[in-house]
Amino acid sequence: MIRKELRVALIGQGSMGRAHSNAYAQVGHFFDTPFSIRRQVICGRNAETLGGMAARWGWEETATDWRQVIDRPDIDIVDVATPNTMHAEMAIAAARAGKIVFCEKPLAVSVEEAERMVEAARRVPNMVWFNYRRVPAIAYTRRLIEEDRIGRVFHYRAAYLQEWGNDPKRPPNWKMYRATAGSGVLGDLLSHLVDTALYLNGPIAEVSALQHTFAEGRDIDDATLLLARFANGSVGTFEATRYAVGRRNSNCFEIHGARGMARFDLEDLNRLDFHDATEPAATAGARRLLVTGPDQPYAGVFWRPGHIIGYEHTFIAALGDFLAALADGREFHPGFDDGLAVERVLDAVARSAVSRAWTQVPAGSPISPPVPKFT
Amino acid sequence: MIRKELRVALIGQGSMGRAHSNAYAQVGHFFDTPFSIRRQVICGRNAETLGGMAARWGWEETATDWRQVIDRPDIDIVDVATPNTMHAEMAIAAARAGKIVFCEKPLAVSVEEAERMVEAARRVPNMVWFNYRRVPAIAYTRRLIEEDRIGRVFHYRAAYLQEWGNDPKRPPNWKMYRATAGSGVLGDLLSHLVDTALYLNGPIAEVSALQHTFAEGRDIDDATLLLARFANGSVGTFEATRYAVGRRNSNCFEIHGARGMARFDLEDLNRLDFHDATEPAATAGARRLLVTGPDQPYAGVFWRPGHIIGYEHTFIAALGDFLAALADGREFHPGFDDGLAVERVLDAVARSAVSRAWTQVPAGSPISPPVPKFT
Amino acid sequence: MIRKELRVALIGQGSMGRAHSNAYAQVGHFFDTPFSIRRQVICGRNAETLGGMAARWGWEETATDWRQVIDRPDIDIVDVATPNTMHAEMAIAAARAGKIVFCEKPLAVSVEEAERMVEAARRVPNMVWFNYRRVPAIAYTRRLIEEDRIGRVFHYRAAYLQEWGNDPKRPPNWKMYRATAGSGVLGDLLSHLVDTALYLNGPIAEVSALQHTFAEGRDIDDATLLLARFANGSVGTFEATRYAVGRRNSNCFEIHGARGMARFDLEDLNRLDFHDATEPAATAGARRLLVTGPDQPYAGVFWRPGHIIGYEHTFIAALGDFLAALADGREFHPGFDDGLAVERVLDAVARSAVSRAWTQVPAGSPISPPVPKFT
Amino acid sequence: MIRKELRVALIGQGSMGRAHSNAYAQVGHFFDTPFSIRRQVICGRNAETLGGMAARWGWEETATDWRQVIDRPDIDIVDVATPNTMHAEMAIAAARAGKIVFCEKPLAVSVEEAERMVEAARRVPNMVWFNYRRVPAIAYTRRLIEEDRIGRVFHYRAAYLQEWGNDPKRPPNWKMYRATAGSGVLGDLLSHLVDTALYLNGPIAEVSALQHTFAEGRDIDDATLLLARFANGSVGTFEATRYAVGRRNSNCFEIHGARGMARFDLEDLNRLDFHDATEPAATAGARRLLVTGPDQPYAGVFWRPGHIIGYEHTFIAALGDFLAALADGREFHPGFDDGLAVERVLDAVARSAVSRAWTQVPAGSPISPPVPKFT
Repeated sequence: MIRKELRVALIGQGSMGRAHSNAYAQVGHFFDTPFSIRRQVICGRNAETLGGMAARWGWEETATDWRQVIDRPDIDIVDVATPNTMHAEMAIAAARAGKIVFCEKPLAVSVEEAERMVEAARRVPNMVWFNYRRVPAIAYTRRLIEEDRIGRVFHYRAAYLQEWGNDPKRPPNWKMYRATAGSGVLGDLLSHLVDTALYLNGPIAEVSALQHTFAEGRDIDDATLLLARFANGSVGTFEATRYAVGRRNSNCFEIHGARGMARFDLEDLNRLDFHDATEPAATAGARRLLVTGPDQPYAGVFWRPGHIIGYEHTFIAALGDFLAALADGREFHPGFDDGLAVERVLDAVARSAVSRAWTQVPAGSPISPPVPKFT
Repeated sequence: MIRKELRVALIGQGSMGRAHSNAYAQVGHFFDTPFSIRRQVICGRNAETLGGMAARWGWEETATDWRQVIDRPDIDIVDVATPNTMHAEMAIAAARAGKIVFCEKPLAVSVEEAERMVEAARRVPNMVWFNYRRVPAIAYTRRLIEEDRIGRVFHYRAAYLQEWGNDPKRPPNWKMYRATAGSGVLGDLLSHLVDTALYLNGPIAEVSALQHTFAEGRDIDDATLLLARFANGSVGTFEATRYAVGRRNSNCFEIHGARGMARFDLEDLNRLDFHDATEPAATAGARRLLVTGPDQPYAGVFWRPGHIIGYEHTFIAALGDFLAALADGREFHPGFDDGLAVERVLDAVARSAVSRAWTQVPAGSPISPPVPKFT
Repeated sequence: MIRKELRVALIGQGSMGRAHSNAYAQVGHFFDTPFSIRRQVICGRNAETLGGMAARWGWEETATDWRQVIDRPDIDIVDVATPNTMHAEMAIAAARAGKIVFCEKPLAVSVEEAERMVEAARRVPNMVWFNYRRVPAIAYTRRLIEEDRIGRVFHYRAAYLQEWGNDPKRPPNWKMYRATAGSGVLGDLLSHLVDTALYLNGPIAEVSALQHTFAEGRDIDDATLLLARFANGSVGTFEATRYAVGRRNSNCFEIHGARGMARFDLEDLNRLDFHDATEPAATAGARRLLVTGPDQPYAGVFWRPGHIIGYEHTFIAALGDFLAALADGREFHPGFDDGLAVERVLDAVARSAVSRAWTQVPAGSPISPPVPKFT
Repeated sequence: MIRKELRVALIGQGSMGRAHSNAYAQVGHFFDTPFSIRRQVICGRNAETLGGMAARWGWEETATDWRQVIDRPDIDIVDVATPNTMHAEMAIAAARAGKIVFCEKPLAVSVEEAERMVEAARRVPNMVWFNYRRVPAIAYTRRLIEEDRIGRVFHYRAAYLQEWGNDPKRPPNWKMYRATAGSGVLGDLLSHLVDTALYLNGPIAEVSALQHTFAEGRDIDDATLLLARFANGSVGTFEATRYAVGRRNSNCFEIHGARGMARFDLEDLNRLDFHDATEPAATAGARRLLVTGPDQPYAGVFWRPGHIIGYEHTFIAALGDFLAALADGREFHPGFDDGLAVERVLDAVARSAVSRAWTQVPAGSPISPPVPKFT
């Protein structure tokens, strides 16, 4: 039985801990939900900073031992926002303790881990924070696909372009080491691209990939590039890098179908370029939609049409949608199963980069997200 | 003496009441401040909706009689977010009661009202919600001007372009009537343009204006256009309209100076186009800056560089800056004096539109915002 | 009677002389025309440079006395591409000699001059080189207006923004002196904006203008700004300047109507932004049209769809259209009458800038271009 | 010995024949050259259309047998603008006849053919019409690279995106059949991308490619995608397709280096986005350069700064540069050797698509274009 007041234990006090804290604080302001969220306890290893973090974000308690927190009967939700290599142990423990489990992306650092996480979480509501599915422009792209405004897809092109890998003054953090991150851009950036691609264009059948490390001495991939064949017959390219000098945080895709095109870039996250190829040629052109409503996803939830939202709202919306699903007893996506589906692609990518061969992505899994249907 | 815990009474439950509520809820999450904000009471005439609004946004009490609230000794801040024609009476009463007073823009519906408001608020900390000064890109433009990156200004061009005036299905609200709004786009949209212009380019000396009502039977201006001469010798155009079909919420300006250019559009509020005219011509071009840090206003306050903010953050930042000034005993801008400076321009605009003549803006006032200095 | 081989005398060897020479050389390559153009003689005062100019551009003869050339019976077309203050005398002489007369814009430097030119040219085919009417995107805008895709116009906004006025290293030329240019940006840049506005949005009823000279000692306007009321009830702003630092050659307009919007910038002259306001709101946005065909003006004339044209093609297309009209015995626009219509607006603008008052543009003239009709 | 008057025989009357004809007609208008070009004879199989083509573009004679033309002693230049599979035979015959030889891209339909062409043309001046090297923005990118404004390159990303493959109403032409085109987008579009990449970023070491045919029954590739490793250590993606619905003719690249970024799109061919990463972060952003001079390639050749050029000017500039090299006795690029270098990459791509394996591009050839040097 789910309580009306949901008490959250958040593990992690980094930038994701901050984004999640904000989502807990804000969800009730924007979303109608029967639940109230109580920021009960925040866990972190650095006790020095933890108090300030808790005070600032309204966490009632702090803790440095995550295991004790997970066993507390008053905790309803355990939210794992730690470095990647710690996800599996924590999330599995939380799931086994019967908690609702949220986990930052990437779900895990191996398929094997992800499979165990899915297995452990089979009986608890769960979510993986692939927050970009909740960008209104991306959710609207999915709707356009479902409404057959894109049609049979020919091409899918995605890139996550950052530049900070090339900044010698930047202090290294856990994302720069295999021991803590599991991988470089593969898990950090490509995972986002893959989740969005699975959401919008369905399963990926096979990949040919290249991984490269530009900096001497690093044990992670600074860049991962790949070609892909999707199950629906379309072909695609993916590129994730921290060496795209001149691009601050450009998470972009473009889909070309028989009936239309959609194009997005996170640096301008309220925009969607949509081209309707069924228009007469003379007046057909990419339309610059400002996806702030009306009649678009999350219209009326945040601000009036024409008033844009920011990065943080994607976390709020993910949480809002999760709570709605919870209230209705519906399955929520992206859950751990979706996180596993992403891991299977990432794993094939990494293997392909080593073997230098086209590599199949294990298919036919019942846990893949539904493929958008075209009429 | 200012209490550490500041109890707010908010008057108004419309979209501005919502944006202000969010600012109170969020300011402590992002800004370091010695103050804590308590959402004490929300006032509104519609008792039916007030309870839901209070519950959603964490207001402890509701009230339908604003006068009683203003007199309460436990209230520290009175925030006026009502239709324009009610601002003066409420803000003056609150100031006379010794409260810190915040007032939505436009400050008033006449210069005379605004002068009385300034007079009444002379001894209390005050703020007018010209939130767009806190758009990081606009604050950064001001900094570029102060650092002489724009140089002697030649041209200032501003437009606030909306399209909903042309939507016959849209139900009319208080903004469509002179009795409640005082004016049409003059107070609603042009006031924003003028405040930003005064902030960036200093006092306006004289104007020649045109006002037009497209819809039959309306008693307000659907569009206001003007030419301006600034005190610093530059010339400008301003355009505010609700009939700019194809523009959802485009609040934009462009400044051309001897050393550079800056250009902004609210629909992409994290961007600033900056042109450095001291560059060699071959590599000089408008740079598309993503103003999310580092080394830019509000860097580190919200999210990491490359992660954009939305409309609401301008309110949070205005409040955060106000509290910082309050803590330091510094004067805050924009205050009621800045609101009055805007009213003087708007009044000259309205008079010019009637007289069809160039009209001086009363100058030499000690309460004008400081003119940016050029070396 | 018109000869099949048309022999041209071009007066002027500056940048316009060059652009016209190119048009004569190229028109037969792109346009089907029964006429052949023979570059017979080029006239110029600087005999030193004239030979090289003639050799490069295929002029058979050179001459330094324009009067002798105009009287030659073998000459069919006289093309005036001299500094503005020389247009009237030359064009009138040519017209009186029975020649087909082409004249660079602005047609004249006063209404009185322009009226005499129209009178003199009443019986000869004539053209004023307002070449931008032949930008495919602008011609297509006109078509969209005629097809009622823009609807009742609310706003017209135009600006011609250059920056070279602020370049101290640039050697002065005839455009910088009243004696040779007649005016500054008024005739040079605003004339283009006004011709396009009359073409797209019909007559201008009245104006309120400001003119400003930024450079010390100059006797011309560096900037001219104005508000306008059009005869069709729409309102507009115009801005022409050589001090728009950061804008190389931006000749742009935006039209907002009840049914749509069109937006153009010469720096990207193959593009037109078109917004269809009759679309459902969710998928309505400004479409980025690449106006290179199919089913758009000049499709098939130049290159295949998707292959862009440049500045010079607007001259070629103007000449091509003129020859087509000549072949068919149709009236051509823009002719001297259109040039006069522009002069009347410019004159009202200049008078308004002096009188600081709204100034009527003489209306009801039979020579105004036809107002686009709305159904 | 090279004659001062160069008589050209053009083989082909399609759209490339038209573009070349224009280049011959126009080169002397813009480029200083000691040579004069005489359009002597145009060859084509369709005698019905050939007369009109010759008359329109000023060819003095027509011929239907290309072999007879090649043997004529009065012909100096033979220009092959026929379907791809005919290039080798014609170009080799022309070279053996001692003519200057120009050949449309792709040079050939196999490496073997291209090698024979290079061998045959070893003693005659030659050019392959990779006209896009002469886009001012692309030539300027090369200069920026040579001036070390881009620095060590990390990423190269290129795409040639067209949409007409998906247009069922379009009549098929020779480009749709292997018998005449040799391949689909591989030779038609990817060849352009590869030549530009070799020009800007040096040799490609190895590729992993995918080719796909979307339309039933076609025997050519509708899309070719690949990953690449360059000899300089950078990695890249290439994508060429006729199924990029929503993109008319988008030939684009983006280069990310340690010191800067450059980005280009043919649909706006006068623009170059340039990011200087050595700028302070706060004012660093992609600059929108309008590459029309001053101090940029071809400044002063065409029109004044700010006045854009179109598609055709890239052919004029290629020819102008060829004639300048010819006059100076310098080697010209791109010549047949550069065409062969492209073929070697295309061949590796095609083999990789079949073998589904990373495939080496034969390296160490003395005929590869020089690799830009970084300090």
